Amino acid sequence: MKFGGTSVADIDRIRNVALHVKREVDAGHEVAVVVSAMAGTTNKLIEWCREAAALHDAREYDAVVASGEQVTAGLLTIVLEGLGINARSWQGWQVPILTDNAHGAARIIEINGAELVRRFKERKEVAVVAGFQGLHKETGRLTTLGRGGSDTSAVAIAAAIRADRCDIYTDVDGVYTTDPRVVPRARRLDKVAFEEMLELASLGAKVLQVRSVELGMVHNVRIFVRSSFDRPQDIDPHDSPPGTLICDEGEIMEQQTVTGIAFSRDEAQISVREVLDKPGVAAAIFGPLAEANINVDMIVQNVSADGKTTDLTFTVPAADYQRSLDVVAKARSAIGYARLDGATDVAKISVIGIGMRSHAGVAAKAFSALAERSINIRAITTSEIKFSLLIDAAFTELAVRTLHSLYGLDKAAP
Amino acid sequence: MKFGGTSVADIDRIRNVALHVKREVDAGHEVAVVVSAMAGTTNKLIEWCREAAALHDAREYDAVVASGEQVTAGLLTIVLEGLGINARSWQGWQVPILTDNAHGAARIIEINGAELVRRFKERKEVAVVAGFQGLHKETGRLTTLGRGGSDTSAVAIAAAIRADRCDIYTDVDGVYTTDPRVVPRARRLDKVAFEEMLELASLGAKVLQVRSVELGMVHNVRIFVRSSFDRPQDIDPHDSPPGTLICDEGEIMEQQTVTGIAFSRDEAQISVREVLDKPGVAAAIFGPLAEANINVDMIVQNVSADGKTTDLTFTVPAADYQRSLDVVAKARSAIGYARLDGATDVAKISVIGIGMRSHAGVAAKAFSALAERSINIRAITTSEIKFSLLIDAAFTELAVRTLHSLYGLDKAAP
Repeated sequence: MKFGGTSVADIDRIRNVALHVKREVDAGHEVAVVVSAMAGTTNKLIEWCREAAALHDAREYDAVVASGEQVTAGLLTIVLEGLGINARSWQGWQVPILTDNAHGAARIIEINGAELVRRFKERKEVAVVAGFQGLHKETGRLTTLGRGGSDTSAVAIAAAIRADRCDIYTDVDGVYTTDPRVVPRARRLDKVAFEEMLELASLGAKVLQVRSVELGMVHNVRIFVRSSFDRPQDIDPHDSPPGTLICDEGEIMEQQTVTGIAFSRDEAQISVREVLDKPGVAAAIFGPLAEANINVDMIVQNVSADGKTTDLTFTVPAADYQRSLDVVAKARSAIGYARLDGATDVAKISVIGIGMRSHAGVAAKAFSALAERSINIRAITTSEIKFSLLIDAAFTELAVRTLHSLYGLDKAAP
Repeated sequence: MKFGGTSVADIDRIRNVALHVKREVDAGHEVAVVVSAMAGTTNKLIEWCREAAALHDAREYDAVVASGEQVTAGLLTIVLEGLGINARSWQGWQVPILTDNAHGAARIIEINGAELVRRFKERKEVAVVAGFQGLHKETGRLTTLGRGGSDTSAVAIAAAIRADRCDIYTDVDGVYTTDPRVVPRARRLDKVAFEEMLELASLGAKVLQVRSVELGMVHNVRIFVRSSFDRPQDIDPHDSPPGTLICDEGEIMEQQTVTGIAFSRDEAQISVREVLDKPGVAAAIFGPLAEANINVDMIVQNVSADGKTTDLTFTVPAADYQRSLDVVAKARSAIGYARLDGATDVAKISVIGIGMRSHAGVAAKAFSALAERSINIRAITTSEIKFSLLIDAAFTELAVRTLHSLYGLDKAAP
């Protein structure tokens, strides 16, 4: 069970979390809980580090910010013990959760879950683990996993103790077919495959840290996203709770062709016209952009018609539009192109579904449906389980709703 | 160098602390710094533990409250590095500072200072150590040393690294001959022996935690009490700074007969009249008081005049007066006494000085001086380096000033 900062923001909410834990313990489960810092704490600690020095030592930053999770783990344990539940807190270095030494953004290398499992068996003891933190073995220094790292901690702990499931309690009650604010008939998905979730998450369904989903996929940890607002006393542990299970595709019996539709309005399009069609051109464009720390998303390059020149289109975050144009213009002599144009009023729509792999014509249906509504498609990219379209931003809602209906994702009318 | 919570209450004050450290480093010293939690932090953490459960697990309490010092150690290190000083933070478990498992009031068992010393030599690296905390080796759990434990941490670290001196920066600029608010001509002592400081501290000169002085005495760590309000830029590290050195009596060349005068107005006197003069009577009185958690201070029992009965007088905190009378009255049949009386309007005056051991008549001078001012002495106790008098509380200031002049403690008139 993993609870984020909002769920443990004060002692009353920690008490609510403890009741969720108690429910699972009472149902006979062996439970490990991973907690974040109380809401606001990490920001305050980061602010202090910044005040202390503009360029601060990442090792010391880690030592400071890791304290937040330590406090929550201790407090939740105290509340659990007050409810008569055997529990103990574990800091990252106590488990230990061993990481590399990339302070501030460390990666987990190894977790030995044997002691936690032994204590489940022998003492029915709940393990309350401080999320977000680990230990670099060689130096003995604390590390942190970077923002949102507690999700990753939870999935890694779940893998280490071979948990049946990793329940992530969040402020949403699951993963939806698309943003319900745009499409009121969006449905919560009961199940979604790891690969699909990776595409959905990185495209804006900000439910889980991408790394935690990757980790779940590699170690086959079933991740269940559920609401932290449900009152523990209203939940029957024998019922199947509302939420979304992220799992291996093999576990999803009736795979829909399309699982969800993600979109982003925060895009800008840049087209480099009449680029010489020769090796090294892409590197000459994207190398300088990477050096400028600009995150390039879609890249479309068509096969040259005349064998000499071609057009190359890519998208960047809207905020980086002007800077990107400048970077490319500066590299003009190295690239060799005729013209540079672009637009900031564009949106990217992505249609995701593992079922696409075995169904032909999924994208073709979208093209006709959008054409019927006179929505012009500026660019198209495809991958095995996803295709993305670049359109004028003004048509975003219309396009998403059209595709949502087209692929049968709308929930039944009430 | 040890800095308390007020000295590190915010980043600006931490910056001031860093300048104190820099001054010592620039003067060529190898420095370890022990810090407390930022003022208010520990109280907030304790409050959360209390909210979490009335009876909280001391091990979890320790895990929660130890986080405060961890934050300060990291922040001070960041500021030091910003000033171009090589530094690293050390949490109790990293040094490690090994303690017993008396969670919440642990005692230090062992500190290995070798790594800290190696880093002084090889990297000129300042060690910033989180005070107040340690590690219980067998369980791998965090421990804390109890309130004010950072003083004890500092002296223990100083012993482990064989420091020349342990500088405790406090909100007073040293140890005085008596309370300057009562005797304006009280002088700051340049030096005071460990034994004297123990008597002064436990009697109300609340400068240092008693345990830290005991530890200093056992390991012969010279403790220098100085003001944290002095601006670092005003201090010439080659000058002898203002403050009080607590040291071995051998280091004090010209030992005064009397070093200081402590007093307490928060006393109540209880006299048990005509107690049978037989073995076990004292146990019958003080056993029940100890069980009731009442802290008995002075105890005076005279030799029986008739060989049958005697009077026994003791003092307790004024707040415990009525409760103490009740406890003794309840044990009347076990004790066997004729009458019980007492008073709450009494004060205890203690005169302390190692020189007393070799000077006869020190106490006798006090008796005549007080008699001249018609101050009645209710009871007297003596030890090797101290005598205490119980008098009517109304005469406290007069008695303290009289004795302060009598023993030549007044500073010269300006």
